Amino acid sequence: MEELKSLASVLLCVLCLCSAVVNGSDYVKYNTGAGVVAGKLNVHLVAHSHDDVGWLKTVDQYYVGSNNSIQSACVENVLDSVVEALRRDPNRKFVFAEMAFFHRWWVGQSPEIQEQVRKLVDASQLEFVNGGWCMHDEATTHYVDMIDQTTLGHHYIKQHFNKTPKAGWQIDPFGHSAVQAYLLGVELGFDSVHFARIDYQDRAKRKEDKSLEVIWRGSKTFGSSSQIFTNAFPVHYSPPSGFHFELTDDFDPVQDNPLLDGYNVEQWVNDFIDAALTQANVTRDNHIMWTMGDDFQYQYAESWFKQMDKLIHYVNKGGRVNALYSTPSLYTEAKNAANGPWPLKTDDYFPYADRRNAYWTGFFTSRPALKGYVRVLSGFYLASRQLEFLAGKKSPGPTTSALGDALGIAQHHDAVTGTAKQHTTNDYAKRLAIGASEAEVVVSSSLSCLASRKSGDQCTKPASTFSQCPLLNISYCPPTEKGIPEGKNLVVAAYNPLGWNRTDIIRIPVNDANLIVKDPLGNAITVQYVNLDNVTSNLRKFYTEAYLGQSSKQVPRYWLLFQVTVPPLGWNTYFISRAAGKVKRRKGFFLAADSPQDKTVEVGPGNLKMSFSRTTGQLKRMYNSRTGVDVPIQQSFLWYGSMVDTQSSGAYIFRPNGAQPNVVSRSVPIKIIRGPLVDEVHQQFNSWIYQVTRLYIDKEHAEVEYTIGPIPTEDSVGKEVISRMTANMVTEKVFYTDSNGRDFLKRVRDYRADWSLQVNEPVAGNYYPLNLGIFITDKKSEFSVLVDRATGGASIKDGQVEIMLHRRMLADDGRGVGEALDESVCVRDNCEGLTVRGNYYLSVNQLGAGARWRRTTGQEVYSPLLLAFTQEKLETWTESHLTKSTAMESDYSLPLNVALITLQELDDGSVLLRLAHLYEEGEDAEYSTLAKVELKKMFKGKSIKQLKEMSLSANQEKLEMKKMTWKVEGESGKTHSPVRGGPVDASTLVVELGPMEIRTFLLKF
Amino acid sequence: MEELKSLASVLLCVLCLCSAVVNGSDYVKYNTGAGVVAGKLNVHLVAHSHDDVGWLKTVDQYYVGSNNSIQSACVENVLDSVVEALRRDPNRKFVFAEMAFFHRWWVGQSPEIQEQVRKLVDASQLEFVNGGWCMHDEATTHYVDMIDQTTLGHHYIKQHFNKTPKAGWQIDPFGHSAVQAYLLGVELGFDSVHFARIDYQDRAKRKEDKSLEVIWRGSKTFGSSSQIFTNAFPVHYSPPSGFHFELTDDFDPVQDNPLLDGYNVEQWVNDFIDAALTQANVTRDNHIMWTMGDDFQYQYAESWFKQMDKLIHYVNKGGRVNALYSTPSLYTEAKNAANGPWPLKTDDYFPYADRRNAYWTGFFTSRPALKGYVRVLSGFYLASRQLEFLAGKKSPGPTTSALGDALGIAQHHDAVTGTAKQHTTNDYAKRLAIGASEAEVVVSSSLSCLASRKSGDQCTKPASTFSQCPLLNISYCPPTEKGIPEGKNLVVAAYNPLGWNRTDIIRIPVNDANLIVKDPLGNAITVQYVNLDNVTSNLRKFYTEAYLGQSSKQVPRYWLLFQVTVPPLGWNTYFISRAAGKVKRRKGFFLAADSPQDKTVEVGPGNLKMSFSRTTGQLKRMYNSRTGVDVPIQQSFLWYGSMVDTQSSGAYIFRPNGAQPNVVSRSVPIKIIRGPLVDEVHQQFNSWIYQVTRLYIDKEHAEVEYTIGPIPTEDSVGKEVISRMTANMVTEKVFYTDSNGRDFLKRVRDYRADWSLQVNEPVAGNYYPLNLGIFITDKKSEFSVLVDRATGGASIKDGQVEIMLHRRMLADDGRGVGEALDESVCVRDNCEGLTVRGNYYLSVNQLGAGARWRRTTGQEVYSPLLLAFTQEKLETWTESHLTKSTAMESDYSLPLNVALITLQELDDGSVLLRLAHLYEEGEDAEYSTLAKVELKKMFKGKSIKQLKEMSLSANQEKLEMKKMTWKVEGESGKTHSPVRGGPVDASTLVVELGPMEIRTFLLKF
Repeated sequence: MEELKSLASVLLCVLCLCSAVVNGSDYVKYNTGAGVVAGKLNVHLVAHSHDDVGWLKTVDQYYVGSNNSIQSACVENVLDSVVEALRRDPNRKFVFAEMAFFHRWWVGQSPEIQEQVRKLVDASQLEFVNGGWCMHDEATTHYVDMIDQTTLGHHYIKQHFNKTPKAGWQIDPFGHSAVQAYLLGVELGFDSVHFARIDYQDRAKRKEDKSLEVIWRGSKTFGSSSQIFTNAFPVHYSPPSGFHFELTDDFDPVQDNPLLDGYNVEQWVNDFIDAALTQANVTRDNHIMWTMGDDFQYQYAESWFKQMDKLIHYVNKGGRVNALYSTPSLYTEAKNAANGPWPLKTDDYFPYADRRNAYWTGFFTSRPALKGYVRVLSGFYLASRQLEFLAGKKSPGPTTSALGDALGIAQHHDAVTGTAKQHTTNDYAKRLAIGASEAEVVVSSSLSCLASRKSGDQCTKPASTFSQCPLLNISYCPPTEKGIPEGKNLVVAAYNPLGWNRTDIIRIPVNDANLIVKDPLGNAITVQYVNLDNVTSNLRKFYTEAYLGQSSKQVPRYWLLFQVTVPPLGWNTYFISRAAGKVKRRKGFFLAADSPQDKTVEVGPGNLKMSFSRTTGQLKRMYNSRTGVDVPIQQSFLWYGSMVDTQSSGAYIFRPNGAQPNVVSRSVPIKIIRGPLVDEVHQQFNSWIYQVTRLYIDKEHAEVEYTIGPIPTEDSVGKEVISRMTANMVTEKVFYTDSNGRDFLKRVRDYRADWSLQVNEPVAGNYYPLNLGIFITDKKSEFSVLVDRATGGASIKDGQVEIMLHRRMLADDGRGVGEALDESVCVRDNCEGLTVRGNYYLSVNQLGAGARWRRTTGQEVYSPLLLAFTQEKLETWTESHLTKSTAMESDYSLPLNVALITLQELDDGSVLLRLAHLYEEGEDAEYSTLAKVELKKMFKGKSIKQLKEMSLSANQEKLEMKKMTWKVEGESGKTHSPVRGGPVDASTLVVELGPMEIRTFLLKF
Repeated sequence: MEELKSLASVLLCVLCLCSAVVNGSDYVKYNTGAGVVAGKLNVHLVAHSHDDVGWLKTVDQYYVGSNNSIQSACVENVLDSVVEALRRDPNRKFVFAEMAFFHRWWVGQSPEIQEQVRKLVDASQLEFVNGGWCMHDEATTHYVDMIDQTTLGHHYIKQHFNKTPKAGWQIDPFGHSAVQAYLLGVELGFDSVHFARIDYQDRAKRKEDKSLEVIWRGSKTFGSSSQIFTNAFPVHYSPPSGFHFELTDDFDPVQDNPLLDGYNVEQWVNDFIDAALTQANVTRDNHIMWTMGDDFQYQYAESWFKQMDKLIHYVNKGGRVNALYSTPSLYTEAKNAANGPWPLKTDDYFPYADRRNAYWTGFFTSRPALKGYVRVLSGFYLASRQLEFLAGKKSPGPTTSALGDALGIAQHHDAVTGTAKQHTTNDYAKRLAIGASEAEVVVSSSLSCLASRKSGDQCTKPASTFSQCPLLNISYCPPTEKGIPEGKNLVVAAYNPLGWNRTDIIRIPVNDANLIVKDPLGNAITVQYVNLDNVTSNLRKFYTEAYLGQSSKQVPRYWLLFQVTVPPLGWNTYFISRAAGKVKRRKGFFLAADSPQDKTVEVGPGNLKMSFSRTTGQLKRMYNSRTGVDVPIQQSFLWYGSMVDTQSSGAYIFRPNGAQPNVVSRSVPIKIIRGPLVDEVHQQFNSWIYQVTRLYIDKEHAEVEYTIGPIPTEDSVGKEVISRMTANMVTEKVFYTDSNGRDFLKRVRDYRADWSLQVNEPVAGNYYPLNLGIFITDKKSEFSVLVDRATGGASIKDGQVEIMLHRRMLADDGRGVGEALDESVCVRDNCEGLTVRGNYYLSVNQLGAGARWRRTTGQEVYSPLLLAFTQEKLETWTESHLTKSTAMESDYSLPLNVALITLQELDDGSVLLRLAHLYEEGEDAEYSTLAKVELKKMFKGKSIKQLKEMSLSANQEKLEMKKMTWKVEGESGKTHSPVRGGPVDASTLVVELGPMEIRTFLLKF
């Protein structure tokens, strides 16, 4: 029947336009060329793709688009299609951030495509933002790593495109650090930084008073001289709801062809204006930014640009609002032209919570083994680049570049953070291991080369080959374990990457108790043997098999300890041989534990003493005999049970299931080993927590080695393990934590300077990231804790300091990673929870004197001695080698307030040098002052032909950097004038550094 | 701790390549330029996107990419990105089929893009295959519609690109028709046709004996003179498993960068070769085709081409197999060069089953209302184009183009098939209604114009406006229902689109029983009144409100019937007025039902008589008094219960839940109305099935009008309703069904000529598609049933014919549409199952004489008289109008074996003419002969200045068409020589047509 025939008769008038079969053209040339229009609300459309350098998939999987069952994402597609889309319309713009991805793409392109891309970059259609190798995390990263990875990317951009990024684009990291603002922002020449993630309470307040956009001064020392325009997004780094145009999204496209069904231009224009006005209501002046992108979007870029073309065209026809293709730089220029004044922001944006019970403070500690590995390799990378430069970079040949690449990737905000999936984490570790192995070759050959340079001339083919022991901490070191043949010596070379002379006690595993250690002059020096404890030997057995695939039932019997002294940027050599006969038991050999008599036992061969209770085994007191500082301190291990709930504790989020952590043991067996070099206190807190406290004769701190794991979960409770130190100090809620290992920021429990804090998570909400350490003070003393890796820390009660050392849980926290943070290690089918071993360092100081310990010890922890081993006759060795030497003039040392943080030979033969003042303004009476470095003395035997001071990432000359000026609310024109070094005189070549100053130079020798 | 450090040490040697941070270039220029290589296995990669012209979404939704929650698909993206991808490498190729989509895209492109596309087409990188407006269905389509929609697309291609498609690309339709092969293939100039869907048993057999590729001769009449290379794919039209490269697919890309993780070139090459050899094992010679695409793929074309580039490059390096970018045309050329011989295929590929219990024979009937509407409009489009031409096409102005576009879309294999979602089906109906409305305006104004042309000169602005009544079948016709003012007449114009003079009895609804009908000469003619039955008046009430939105509680009281005579391609006019006084009851007025006396009652005012049982109401016998043919026939309505199971009966699939259908009623009330013009037998079979059998005085067949619905489903059983006629004839399993309304094919129950059939579905597996009709024969007689729309039909027992008229079910059949075929119609909140009204036609003939009835009546059913109404004084009208006229010379008529199937004025003023011989070779003693059409007589008053014989779709001159030659197995060189018309002499302009011949001409007047 014909009922249907009439269905549309009624629609005929409405839809008669649709009835034409058009033979003409419906082509609409979209007018996308709008710039900023004064007097209108300007909507800056910033097209971007947020491409994690590894997360649910590995970086290479994301790049090539494999493993798509986990996540459909292919960065190659993004860049392929963005370039095509940009070429279709010269008004379109796109920003790209992650150079680790861009590099992968660039090298695969034809010369034609490369030329097209150069044109797009020159025309500012394609703009690099951030421009680092990755978008680094800001909580668990060390500032040296942040600088290195940014330099890697910026160098790439400079080299291939002669461009310098102007905008910080930290859209995803989980909170934002002070160092990011003033150092990895201003000092890079960035005018602005943009990000999405700030505390939900903070955001609510800032939306209310239109203070999402601020002038941020991250540094107390530099104040207004180092400020940056900061744009916290009102919602997220995705577009306003409904403006998400990925190919796979379910959206109704802008349909502007009246001859087809569903013409909807008016609806889209209205929706656009509504969304713009909503955002304008929380934003000052008449510029708003829409972040037109999301994670791994623009797989087919045209899908986005087509919609944006139409929206710009039709919205601008309406005249009420002006939409334009823009970038963060253009947006910042518009904001700068608007002239303010702007709210002021100081300190940082930690911790980050995205809702009531969701503090992202778990990731400060998540995957402590990875975090430790990254930190160890960070120091190793610094040292290996020094040696690579000193010996002369080889081409071709093993280099440190792969390690730099791996470390660059590891700084990503889902890498070192511990928030990637396990398989991705394995990939990060693999990359690091591959890079480290290659750098080890560089270190060994460079050391050999340098040492074999008897006459100081060019390095020749080295006569001997060193080997190194990256698994020394679990007593695995084949070159020291094996026997020393008669007449030969075990040659131990120690390289000191610091700019100062240094004395350290080193330990190596041996099987022979009849060893003699001689210094280069042939003098036997004091040694101490310590029996290998069971915990270490078990650890060694399991992990060498798990990771090296080789079962090692034989474990070494002893640790051999002796003291070494090494000049700055130099090395020293020690010779170990078997004694002719049986050596008598001497002082320092096999010192057994004390037999208890008193209630308290005091340990410490040097100035620092620690007292322990004989009955409970607990620490009671720390006392410095030199300074007289005496602080009663108790230390315990505890664990927070992890919440399992609609908001569980997980890789990102720390949410204890109750306010109080569980004490592991109130009474702990204690074993004390004394010796001439070190006293050790061994404490087995429970079956899975072991701690050794070491007090060295030459140090005024305690080195605490913890071994935690496998954390049991048979009770179905996830556990987040802390070491808590309770000092008898009145701290009035205040504690101090570092920012990326550099500045210390004052923290106040249950308080935020920027808004009235509603406390929902009394523990998790008071955690802060540590990279260097944490300290508390009272009116007389300071109690400081330094860490050897990124760690979460807090002071939950006055006088207390706690650091979180390991976490294992059974639930995912719902932020995308989709796995519980439940690390395990397997030997064949036998899997167990990951055991973590690491150090923290304790010191008590007079009020005002702690900084000196923290800064100096911090550098020593970050840059340990490099040890290298070989076997040779002492005489043969000394005849053909420099046994002790320095790259500096022999009597020269860097000032104690200056660290050499980069010394690296670049591919073009120029040398990158970075010097960092280690003290903040007013931090130390003596050291918070202008320091001077004499470059001529620093580089013995080399002549500096050219020196250019550069931006922090060395991509532009310091002189050429321009700063925008910004008005700040309630401030007159006067600005803070920090102490800064002056220009470097080309003849004297003395570099001055004011407090916290980092100066970057390109040298040509 | 540092365990992780060592994780990859073991992997170091394996992966050392990965460690390099490459500063060089990894660019690989892929060698994609391979052509066919002799002696190797050639894998022809045919890149394609199968884009349904509506299915789960509407055609416009698919084009613009809206409504993506149903299906993520956007054809605009396909074409955008394919063009970009083709431009990146001149070796890449892509084929595109659906011009309804291409047109939408093309008109929106800039001149620059259009120019690029022209170059791609010229370079054969972009090839149009099939090239129709859609990829038409082959089961439920009428051959005239197939020709029209193909012509629409081919004209578009010719006009914009000057190209003629060479390959049939029917990859998705659900079975394949004989007419497709020889007519919509060979006659278009196609060398080949390619498709995926053939019966699973057939496919298994063909894979075994390598006969997937055949030479297909679809026409008994033309035999080897009309054959085509046919390629049935071994699996589907998607690529081999694992070679599916859509952006959203989960595949591991070919990773050929050894510096990144996951290098897998060897694995891909091996997989490719394995897949190629697998296919080679079921294919003759050394060419195989891979269909590199799928439904709505190539949203981001680069995703496919990038993989194919690499595969071609690396596979060809291996040397075992040669992969190349190809097209169906290039593939066919390679096959043709291989020289055969090839297996022979005749008949068709129906029915199609894709597995044991899944016969796709449900869609032969699915959505009978839509199918009816499409068929009605097909005839209307033919007629309206005639009138548009005769009156002169207006520009601008309403045209028939929108109807042509809508009908073109409606032929799609998910449109008229009834296999689209309901909302998409509504869109098809809407488009048809919009197109029909515009064509109605063309018809009215053309008729007015032609009729007002008293002197035969150019058409002037018409003096009166006709209106038409598309809902006449449910008695809705406002111009005839309203009263006729005193002195005025209701003017009824009837246009005859046939090439022959014609006499028909028409019926119009009126409210006045005192009407006089006069012919143009003023003679009163015989009328008959029939009371409007309740079923019709209820239907009218509900459906006018549902579809027109206007409640019509007033229903007309009578049908007024009278006989009209109309010349070929001409019209006649009848005048109806109120009688002056009360008219006496005359013969033919209000003939009440007989009062039953005998057991049997015979009806029929003409030669055909039908006998019904007075007791059961059932048909008993049909008898033709002129020919003496007398066949006992019983007719019942029955329904199959629909299977609900892992394989349910649904929109595609017919699967009864038991072998036997349920008889609706064994005894039915009967009401007989007799009159001078028609006898009507009204039978209410049950509350939802009503049937009226009409025997007209001037016809030798019964017209049976059924009204079925709402089909009840309260018992949770879906129902598939058939009318079954059981004749007392010995048919020996044989019956005949038409192919797309043209050839009749012999069917044998439970048998396939091509393989040994395993009968799993004894009913569904014996269904065939009907577009014209079905008949059975015995040694004396033929019993024929013609249908008014696409319908499924079968002969399940000897002597039986059944046709399926309506289907309603409650489950989806799992072929993607995701909806049960459960059509309903709503008036406000009152929804009920769809009621369907339609006709079928019964005739009994002497053996050998049925064809004449079927062919002639088939044309009359397909091309009914167009009726148009207005009111005017008789005298005024006749003074100013031609009341009866023909476009032909007044004494001329087309031969009765020739139909005018196209007469259409094109945009450039030239005229498209198609003439079709209606009889197959040997079908009728008199009519299966060479026929002649005298064009000069056909076009009265016009002079033909130019005549070109063209291919079927008029995109190339017939003379220029070349045919490939193919060797067929077991055949010598001799070929069948059918009778065909010779060249047209330019002076005499007589067109000869052999049996089944269709000749297409472009004329200029």
